Amino acid sequence: MEPPRALLFDVFGTCVDWRSSIIREGEALGRRLGLGTVDWAAVADAWRALYQPQMETVRSGARPWVTLDVLHREALDRVLADAGLQGVPESDRADFTLAWHRLDPWPDTVAGLHRLGQRFVVAPNSNGHIALMVNLSKRAGLRWDAILGAELARAYKPQPEVYLRGVEALGLVPSQVMMVAAHNVDLVAAAACGLRTAFVPRPTEHGAGQTTDLRPARPVDVVATDLGDLAGQLGA
Amino acid sequence: MEPPRALLFDVFGTCVDWRSSIIREGEALGRRLGLGTVDWAAVADAWRALYQPQMETVRSGARPWVTLDVLHREALDRVLADAGLQGVPESDRADFTLAWHRLDPWPDTVAGLHRLGQRFVVAPNSNGHIALMVNLSKRAGLRWDAILGAELARAYKPQPEVYLRGVEALGLVPSQVMMVAAHNVDLVAAAACGLRTAFVPRPTEHGAGQTTDLRPARPVDVVATDLGDLAGQLGA
Repeated sequence: MEPPRALLFDVFGTCVDWRSSIIREGEALGRRLGLGTVDWAAVADAWRALYQPQMETVRSGARPWVTLDVLHREALDRVLADAGLQGVPESDRADFTLAWHRLDPWPDTVAGLHRLGQRFVVAPNSNGHIALMVNLSKRAGLRWDAILGAELARAYKPQPEVYLRGVEALGLVPSQVMMVAAHNVDLVAAAACGLRTAFVPRPTEHGAGQTTDLRPARPVDVVATDLGDLAGQLGA
Repeated sequence: MEPPRALLFDVFGTCVDWRSSIIREGEALGRRLGLGTVDWAAVADAWRALYQPQMETVRSGARPWVTLDVLHREALDRVLADAGLQGVPESDRADFTLAWHRLDPWPDTVAGLHRLGQRFVVAPNSNGHIALMVNLSKRAGLRWDAILGAELARAYKPQPEVYLRGVEALGLVPSQVMMVAAHNVDLVAAAACGLRTAFVPRPTEHGAGQTTDLRPARPVDVVATDLGDLAGQLGA
């Protein structure tokens, strides 16, 4: 097959370990506020569990497109209430919401992306907005050629316009672009738009004992163990 | 003054030497097609002279937003006709239009941007579209944190929405952002939106004997001789 010209990346879960990072930020918040024993892993999971239902309110047209900062904050208020943490002050809620701008990369991400960027155009195609992607990437050392994704399309994956707007912005056609993700739903949607697909499983994204997204649900062009392996398989 | 958080850059003229690059591409085209003696500097100047009137057709609302590839190609057909070069074939016109994706940086640009990027968020705020910026930057070695500008705003500078949409995309307010440009009209428009301004004159952008944009027309926050000097003055 002819190599792709550009690689689009899912970020939350594929490039960064959101769960460990949110737990880390929660523990710091707990220490700062003297909150005592809190199950921050449960908080992280509950927070993330609201992600798809919230985006669905945008995808369905029930509300206009808003950034993940807005969705994350609304969800956080519900999660803290459910966890009995109503006392967390406003300024700490605002800061904790921005924990999603401070997620740590998986160990292979920085070097793998660097290698891939030597050969291909690389860009996030994330549901995170531009400011979140810029802040996260600057902090984590992720180097991109552009920031594509939800904000450019004013839609949320897996809506096809997110993939197609990213491809168009690069001046390419879908078959010249490969979507890289740890999530089957993302790759199925990308493939339906004509993009090529690379599955990079992240078997501890949801912690030990994860049972989802361990292998491709549909045929993909490449399966790689991490971004370094992907670089090797793509000749980068 | 508190340092800015992000720097937005004009690109054509400020970061890259479009005129010498278009002349270089024209000369290569002339050799390839055996066109004989052609004043490629005059072609470059005539091509660029159509730039503002063309963008004005978009700014005025007379036509919907289109990319510079479209505007450059329309202008090229007029310029070639005026220069008696009607015989240049379609495929060469298409390729010559993409010369604007292959512009060379000024000698200080790559190192200066690299220094500035260590301390600040850096992004182009150009009238060039995303694909053009990605291709140009990848070839020239310009590293950005995001590609902002005309395509994101679907407007052309100096329309205020281009500056304001870029600031918004970074999650900042105008006073946290500095516009860097070699053109007074760009800085006046940025300042009117509340951005800070840095003037970096490029006294040979239009060739020897340039008489415009040699010094700031209005007060600016910084005047720098090149991007390295700008980095020094901003403590980067």
